[in-house]
Amino acid sequence: MKFNSALESIKTYEAGKPIELVIREYGIEKDQIVKLASNENPFGCSPKVKDAVRAIIDNMALYPDDSMVKLKTALSQKYGIQANELVIGAGSDQVIEFAIHAKAHGGTKVLMNSVTFAMYEIYAKQVGAQIVRTSSREHDMDEFYALYLEHKPSIIFLCTPNNPTGDAINTAKMMDFIGKIDNETLVIVDAAYMEYARYKDASKAVEPRDLIEKFENVLFLGTFSKAYGLGGMRVGYGIGRSDIIEAMYKVRPPFNITTLSLEAASVALEDEAFVQECIADNFKEMERYEIFARSKGINVIESYTNFVTLSLPEEKNSSKIAQELLKKGMIVRDLSSYGLNAIRVTIGTKFQNDRFFELVEPLL
Amino acid sequence: MKFNSALESIKTYEAGKPIELVIREYGIEKDQIVKLASNENPFGCSPKVKDAVRAIIDNMALYPDDSMVKLKTALSQKYGIQANELVIGAGSDQVIEFAIHAKAHGGTKVLMNSVTFAMYEIYAKQVGAQIVRTSSREHDMDEFYALYLEHKPSIIFLCTPNNPTGDAINTAKMMDFIGKIDNETLVIVDAAYMEYARYKDASKAVEPRDLIEKFENVLFLGTFSKAYGLGGMRVGYGIGRSDIIEAMYKVRPPFNITTLSLEAASVALEDEAFVQECIADNFKEMERYEIFARSKGINVIESYTNFVTLSLPEEKNSSKIAQELLKKGMIVRDLSSYGLNAIRVTIGTKFQNDRFFELVEPLL
Repeated sequence: MKFNSALESIKTYEAGKPIELVIREYGIEKDQIVKLASNENPFGCSPKVKDAVRAIIDNMALYPDDSMVKLKTALSQKYGIQANELVIGAGSDQVIEFAIHAKAHGGTKVLMNSVTFAMYEIYAKQVGAQIVRTSSREHDMDEFYALYLEHKPSIIFLCTPNNPTGDAINTAKMMDFIGKIDNETLVIVDAAYMEYARYKDASKAVEPRDLIEKFENVLFLGTFSKAYGLGGMRVGYGIGRSDIIEAMYKVRPPFNITTLSLEAASVALEDEAFVQECIADNFKEMERYEIFARSKGINVIESYTNFVTLSLPEEKNSSKIAQELLKKGMIVRDLSSYGLNAIRVTIGTKFQNDRFFELVEPLL
Repeated sequence: MKFNSALESIKTYEAGKPIELVIREYGIEKDQIVKLASNENPFGCSPKVKDAVRAIIDNMALYPDDSMVKLKTALSQKYGIQANELVIGAGSDQVIEFAIHAKAHGGTKVLMNSVTFAMYEIYAKQVGAQIVRTSSREHDMDEFYALYLEHKPSIIFLCTPNNPTGDAINTAKMMDFIGKIDNETLVIVDAAYMEYARYKDASKAVEPRDLIEKFENVLFLGTFSKAYGLGGMRVGYGIGRSDIIEAMYKVRPPFNITTLSLEAASVALEDEAFVQECIADNFKEMERYEIFARSKGINVIESYTNFVTLSLPEEKNSSKIAQELLKKGMIVRDLSSYGLNAIRVTIGTKFQNDRFFELVEPLL
């Protein structure tokens, strides 16, 4: 059977190796496997969230409250915005999908950084849009502006902090850039790791309220998958002016968030202390990665997230090192498919990080 | 900001009234509200499912196994199919979305029954496809065939049993029809309520394995939201030949099912006895609706589902009756937006059904 021609250029998404597969393939016991590959919070979520989800387990049969009143109220209060400036997605991922389906199509271009989150391109290709990328590894706002003038894209993606590299855009420079973009171009500020950047460096902090007060063409993305420790529950959000949110709602499927996920995310916002403790621990442990890398003469990209990207010297091959680690039960992300000879490692617990140092040492 | 022109014809989806709103608006206590509006299993899900979800609550931080090996293995065994003939969606709803995004576009038509599941039209409009509908309330295979010849649609939707009317297509007639359709037209058999039809009448039963063995252009849809009592967990599936499934995967977002939902659905398949008991009770209670309706001179459409559609006499207005019931805390579905003077009532527990009879009696 023939399908839409846009599908021809899409590679079927290949899922990462589930722990179960590593067990079978390498005969490693489950409790010997350490996964530092998906930037999950190694401390999980707040115990209050677990209690709240347990308490409503009987509600699994009931369709979710599709007005999402509890979660939208909590998020609106957190950010000082109105409920109609907010859309909830199954991960911020789904909000990216909404935006592309609403704004891009076969006749349009989508501008993004050379190395950045892979889903921008995948969703853009689904609607047949053309991809334009910068050449610089970090977000270079001058290069973005030059490419904007040349290509007049329908959407510009800014990922700050950037995944999979960990660096972040200077907020003042980003605001200057957005101010120069015409109002028919949607600028998406993907801030999935913003809780970490906000903690580490005020000059990298982006407040969605500032963004949408100043600009009518911006969509800010946040998620519960990282700092809030709910990667498995698929909850993210987009914040923008109400006309943008209204367009997102037109392409949103009803009941896109599960009953348990709505409760989990709402209650997670009631325990910010837990999140801040996790973030403090994250940066304390990150220092150990930096010291370790320096001692090995390996370059670490300055990170504003819960992961570090180790750029390897030419004589070391990132795919090979990731493969060797996998055989020992240590799952990290090889970045060769991004054109980088680097591995991305999620900051784990002290125990998990010790294990990483121990296993990677003989390979470097 | 301007968005894609297809969005202009889409009405923003209006969610049904959440119970919380009914509480506020009418001052009714929560425990006095009975919701028979969304065809949820009134007995919930199997207790084994609840135990299994409680047992993995610590995994909420972990991204789902995107290969979905456990659920796909269980479903493949249940239906006697291969894993590559199966795609999992966030509700069968999401599989409808995949199919439309993969196969339909602005230049194509989508054929469906006059009265049927609302999301077919909503998703088709998102990609700008043109809607063609039959005139008959029940699926009339001859009319479908005539419209197929006239319009050459890219997708044909057959909903059996049909929502929101409850009637089902004779399987032999449906198979004859599909056999006459060219292989470039995707025929979607939406069988969200098939567990009920299979129980009640073998002549309405559709086995996905038969379908995909015989036809290369069919996608069968099933769900955990109805008989399996997991409406809040958002898990459905599509079964078709591997080339169709491959196309669905190209437009599927990664991690589209939550970690807890994957576990819930997998374990639900281990307790078919629970599901069969719920279905038996459903049809026992449905008889009471039929007797009640007859005693009131009201027509009930013969139902192969877990709901009944009560067609009201002209002098009774369905919107008004639904509104009166709502004021008393009884939530049912008014079908006036489908062009029917009817209300759709989910078969509840004996207690809930008694309450319905008690509250509706003075209104008829």
